[in-house]
Amino acid sequence: MKKIKVGIAGLGRLGKVHANNIAYKIPNAELTAACSIVPAELEYAKEKLGVTDVYTDFREMLEKADIDAVAIVTTSSEHCWQIEAALDAGKHVFSDKPLGVDVAQCKQAEKAVERHPDLTFMLGFMRRYDKSYAYAKKKIEEGAIGTPYMVKATGIDPEAHVEGAIKFAATSGGIFLDMAIHDIDLMRWFLGCEATEVYAQGCTFKHPEFQQVGDDETAMACYKFENGAMGFVHVGRTAPHGYHVETEIIGTEGSIRISAIPEKNQAMIFDVHGAVTECVGSFPERFDEAYLLEMQEFIDCVCEGKQPGVNVYDGTKSTAIGYATTEAWKTGKIVKIG
Amino acid sequence: MKKIKVGIAGLGRLGKVHANNIAYKIPNAELTAACSIVPAELEYAKEKLGVTDVYTDFREMLEKADIDAVAIVTTSSEHCWQIEAALDAGKHVFSDKPLGVDVAQCKQAEKAVERHPDLTFMLGFMRRYDKSYAYAKKKIEEGAIGTPYMVKATGIDPEAHVEGAIKFAATSGGIFLDMAIHDIDLMRWFLGCEATEVYAQGCTFKHPEFQQVGDDETAMACYKFENGAMGFVHVGRTAPHGYHVETEIIGTEGSIRISAIPEKNQAMIFDVHGAVTECVGSFPERFDEAYLLEMQEFIDCVCEGKQPGVNVYDGTKSTAIGYATTEAWKTGKIVKIG
Amino acid sequence: MKKIKVGIAGLGRLGKVHANNIAYKIPNAELTAACSIVPAELEYAKEKLGVTDVYTDFREMLEKADIDAVAIVTTSSEHCWQIEAALDAGKHVFSDKPLGVDVAQCKQAEKAVERHPDLTFMLGFMRRYDKSYAYAKKKIEEGAIGTPYMVKATGIDPEAHVEGAIKFAATSGGIFLDMAIHDIDLMRWFLGCEATEVYAQGCTFKHPEFQQVGDDETAMACYKFENGAMGFVHVGRTAPHGYHVETEIIGTEGSIRISAIPEKNQAMIFDVHGAVTECVGSFPERFDEAYLLEMQEFIDCVCEGKQPGVNVYDGTKSTAIGYATTEAWKTGKIVKIG
Amino acid sequence: MKKIKVGIAGLGRLGKVHANNIAYKIPNAELTAACSIVPAELEYAKEKLGVTDVYTDFREMLEKADIDAVAIVTTSSEHCWQIEAALDAGKHVFSDKPLGVDVAQCKQAEKAVERHPDLTFMLGFMRRYDKSYAYAKKKIEEGAIGTPYMVKATGIDPEAHVEGAIKFAATSGGIFLDMAIHDIDLMRWFLGCEATEVYAQGCTFKHPEFQQVGDDETAMACYKFENGAMGFVHVGRTAPHGYHVETEIIGTEGSIRISAIPEKNQAMIFDVHGAVTECVGSFPERFDEAYLLEMQEFIDCVCEGKQPGVNVYDGTKSTAIGYATTEAWKTGKIVKIG
Repeated sequence: MKKIKVGIAGLGRLGKVHANNIAYKIPNAELTAACSIVPAELEYAKEKLGVTDVYTDFREMLEKADIDAVAIVTTSSEHCWQIEAALDAGKHVFSDKPLGVDVAQCKQAEKAVERHPDLTFMLGFMRRYDKSYAYAKKKIEEGAIGTPYMVKATGIDPEAHVEGAIKFAATSGGIFLDMAIHDIDLMRWFLGCEATEVYAQGCTFKHPEFQQVGDDETAMACYKFENGAMGFVHVGRTAPHGYHVETEIIGTEGSIRISAIPEKNQAMIFDVHGAVTECVGSFPERFDEAYLLEMQEFIDCVCEGKQPGVNVYDGTKSTAIGYATTEAWKTGKIVKIG
Repeated sequence: MKKIKVGIAGLGRLGKVHANNIAYKIPNAELTAACSIVPAELEYAKEKLGVTDVYTDFREMLEKADIDAVAIVTTSSEHCWQIEAALDAGKHVFSDKPLGVDVAQCKQAEKAVERHPDLTFMLGFMRRYDKSYAYAKKKIEEGAIGTPYMVKATGIDPEAHVEGAIKFAATSGGIFLDMAIHDIDLMRWFLGCEATEVYAQGCTFKHPEFQQVGDDETAMACYKFENGAMGFVHVGRTAPHGYHVETEIIGTEGSIRISAIPEKNQAMIFDVHGAVTECVGSFPERFDEAYLLEMQEFIDCVCEGKQPGVNVYDGTKSTAIGYATTEAWKTGKIVKIG
Repeated sequence: MKKIKVGIAGLGRLGKVHANNIAYKIPNAELTAACSIVPAELEYAKEKLGVTDVYTDFREMLEKADIDAVAIVTTSSEHCWQIEAALDAGKHVFSDKPLGVDVAQCKQAEKAVERHPDLTFMLGFMRRYDKSYAYAKKKIEEGAIGTPYMVKATGIDPEAHVEGAIKFAATSGGIFLDMAIHDIDLMRWFLGCEATEVYAQGCTFKHPEFQQVGDDETAMACYKFENGAMGFVHVGRTAPHGYHVETEIIGTEGSIRISAIPEKNQAMIFDVHGAVTECVGSFPERFDEAYLLEMQEFIDCVCEGKQPGVNVYDGTKSTAIGYATTEAWKTGKIVKIG
Repeated sequence: MKKIKVGIAGLGRLGKVHANNIAYKIPNAELTAACSIVPAELEYAKEKLGVTDVYTDFREMLEKADIDAVAIVTTSSEHCWQIEAALDAGKHVFSDKPLGVDVAQCKQAEKAVERHPDLTFMLGFMRRYDKSYAYAKKKIEEGAIGTPYMVKATGIDPEAHVEGAIKFAATSGGIFLDMAIHDIDLMRWFLGCEATEVYAQGCTFKHPEFQQVGDDETAMACYKFENGAMGFVHVGRTAPHGYHVETEIIGTEGSIRISAIPEKNQAMIFDVHGAVTECVGSFPERFDEAYLLEMQEFIDCVCEGKQPGVNVYDGTKSTAIGYATTEAWKTGKIVKIG
């Protein structure tokens, strides 16, 4: 079996998830190089991942490392130039979401991808690979709900992690760019259509720190799609019960709802509170398996020379919609997209 | 519209439920007399139910009151002679469960019913009239689960009411006679067959008071039916979450489960505990509507001269099975059911 | 016990529900008169409700019938003048929703109510009296979810009844006035605050007949409230599984979701399709008990001389919001309310 | 990182699951040898697992292969002698359940394990490693349900696979030995106590082929435990909805129920049937992750020189209870255990 040699860039929280999957859980991949500007992360690579070929400079890794592909899990603002550099160096590229921090960057990445049609590029919208989301997509393709015409998506981070969100609020780009990109991608994916218009609003009732830096704690947006379909996104940061990601797709013959109860597992406790289902606490817990499955998909695409389901244009479009949503939220006006 | 005139005997907790249903919620019935040995209950009849024709003696009510029917909600040991007396006085009879406290009594009641084929007699196995149970029965009759061959029934009283159970443990006849009669009736009803053999055991882990008087806190029994079908009953008294009555009927083509979560209503709370469903707290809360529907059925049967779904033999048989179960539990042996 | 004498106006589908409740299920009420322009409905009153004092003219009933109160369940466009006439005739008034078909009418009704502070007026927002909704309100008042700041409400009529909706689409006033009034009322009630702005859109994917008359099959609206809180309403007409009314209230410390699965009862069937919960088929089935409880509340208020929880201003405000929502939907613009 | 070298014996359905986990998903393990009497399975090892060191003789693998440990996933009747041989050859041993096909064999295996206290031995009761079961155990240890005193376990194979069950019915040892071993182990584990008595019965309503060879389609058993606790096991083979494994543990302060709905994933479909949850179709699908986690535990135990949670005595005891249950079922009598 041919093994794809991968170099990872970025070994933060999510970088470690990807690195462990590549190193230990994907039969046809091996992790052969790592790059980070954080010394402790390179120590981690050596000790926990058995990777001795480590770099502090991304371009140096591209030049010197024995790799077929790179997995980019760096800060969002670095994604686009790293994608471009890696592709130009002849490497297949997996990049975590978002594609870039603005549309201009994304367009640069698009060009790089177009320059190298022989190389695999995949963007990390891992929710598409989650067992429940993939099942929903398959059911829709089989016609189980007729023509899908509405998506309602909810993503609420746990109150338990709100301190981190407050800390980064001033620089996150606002709640929609920070939190809604996955939901935006899912709407486009399930509806098979592009958004043309957005209305949005937000509010802050629990942690005034968000509003102090121009952000909001909770927000919602409505989308109109080219074919008349509708989208609704609700994002928040203060779920007391855990990490709440829920999506509903409504079609002419039925609807599919994913994770109405974001259950931690299949146990239910009956006690003085009633019938209680404990909920998942974080995105790595909820999408644990999806992170593995998306990386497996990337590696399989590299092996088989095919393009993955999530492409560079998905990245540009979700970013563009994220910006339009942010403008709608900030101005209080309806904003045309694209 | 003809209205059936009803006299009620017994105005305790459940008697009040029946009396209010007859007085106010059943179009073709009116409550015209009441009998109780408790003065406060007769006061209640006058003030809350508008019944001025009250008695302390059951036979006197039969003789003097302007009634077509009686509803017997007295102490279990009084049921059988009151049924007999009422039927012999030409009254239609509704009696709350159990039919009697031993099989000999039940046989007496059977004879009385047989003497008066023109009169309506109904036994208060109200669960059969609960919306969910009636739905299950209808689905089974429609063939939704093929041939039913197994029933698993659970009935656990709330820990919140355990003090009352402890108080009556010495005289209740034991946990099976006290608590399993409804489950026994449901097994027979759903399987459409009679039990021939029973094995039982019990235990006490929380309130030793039960074992001190020869009772148990929790118990289970297995039944074999004539056609080979199987029954399982689990009864208990210490559910922390409320009143837990759950029943599953398994057939060759599917199964139906009723009240796996004994929800109080359709609201779910998401809070620091997770996703929480509050549960019903007592049998009057759980079977509120069933008590009304069974009484409506009784009155309709009287009006239309037909016999209700629950007959006197259902009472004798469930009592006989209750005694056999008690013997199995007490002796630790498998007991044949007559 | 004093019994309130009630005359009913209108004996259509919902009128019959109210009439039967008044006649047979509310101890302190009696139905003594009925008014309808449909002969068959007056026949029904005589035969099924035992009401012999019947009228074809509303004003005549007010003048001649022996009634303390009227229950108005006529066509929406008749509500306001009937409310005014009844109050001016010294009768307590229950009116089904909506208060009126435009805001001017509602203001007239407000004046009539204000002229008669001694009389009880109640508007039929029965959802507030549903066991689950009332429980949610109580929990919120007890602080279970902190400060509520967002309501997401969904109301989808069953595809099984869509023919009726198509038939009335041209004259219904549009999907929001036709379907969203209850959801609008619930938002105001749960948030304890008034809406100031609305955005809306709609679409039609299954039955083009709706768009042919300027209506839509499905629609959604976003509301901004005075205190910054947010509301979202989604209404539709083509739920294949039944009548889907679902509401979520989100607060700073938790959230409450009502009827995520609009279960018909507490039975679950396991068969070749999986684990299946059958759903309620219509609003009378879903809100059966709520219709009784709201009427009981009205009668109790009359008896005790107190004002009910739903007042005339709730009617005007929900109508005003319904109109603003319709304008937003028709124009594609954000509309200020009030 | 030290990698444990493992040789696998048996590459059938479950053998392949284990082999892939060892080869690709456990960082500190590598699959270096394989043994099978089926040529196609050795082909599989070479092509899919990259294992070139293959054997048709188990003892030869022990002698020649470069392995630290063996994973035994052969036919049940081979387990015990292979365990003994491997331990005596100085290899750590993981054996799939059951330990042996009779108690005498199990005792042999016990002796072998006792001879080699320095070697790790683990039995594959993988349910203990399932996320939900492990969570339940942890909650119980934390006191969430007080003292556990009753376990109700259900395991029903899918009707979709019944043909296989019919084919092996004559040689499977009967439904309890074939299907109840996991449930028996779970009862012991959750109650922390040994069973002393068993009552059992079975029935066959759909596929008479089972009874023709002395087996049953469905069966149930009741257990009494040393401390008075109670166990109930229900096994069957004809679930139309999929693979239904459900377990409830009841304690003095609460209860935990695992998989009341054996959901395939977190998607719910609303269609003409109602609200539908598709169910898992097989044990490999349901316990996919548990198989990985148990093998990871085995490898970690080998690395760290510690003994795993499931030991050889768990194997003997569950087998002994399985035999006693079978005797109770066959004879219709209560059987003492141990």
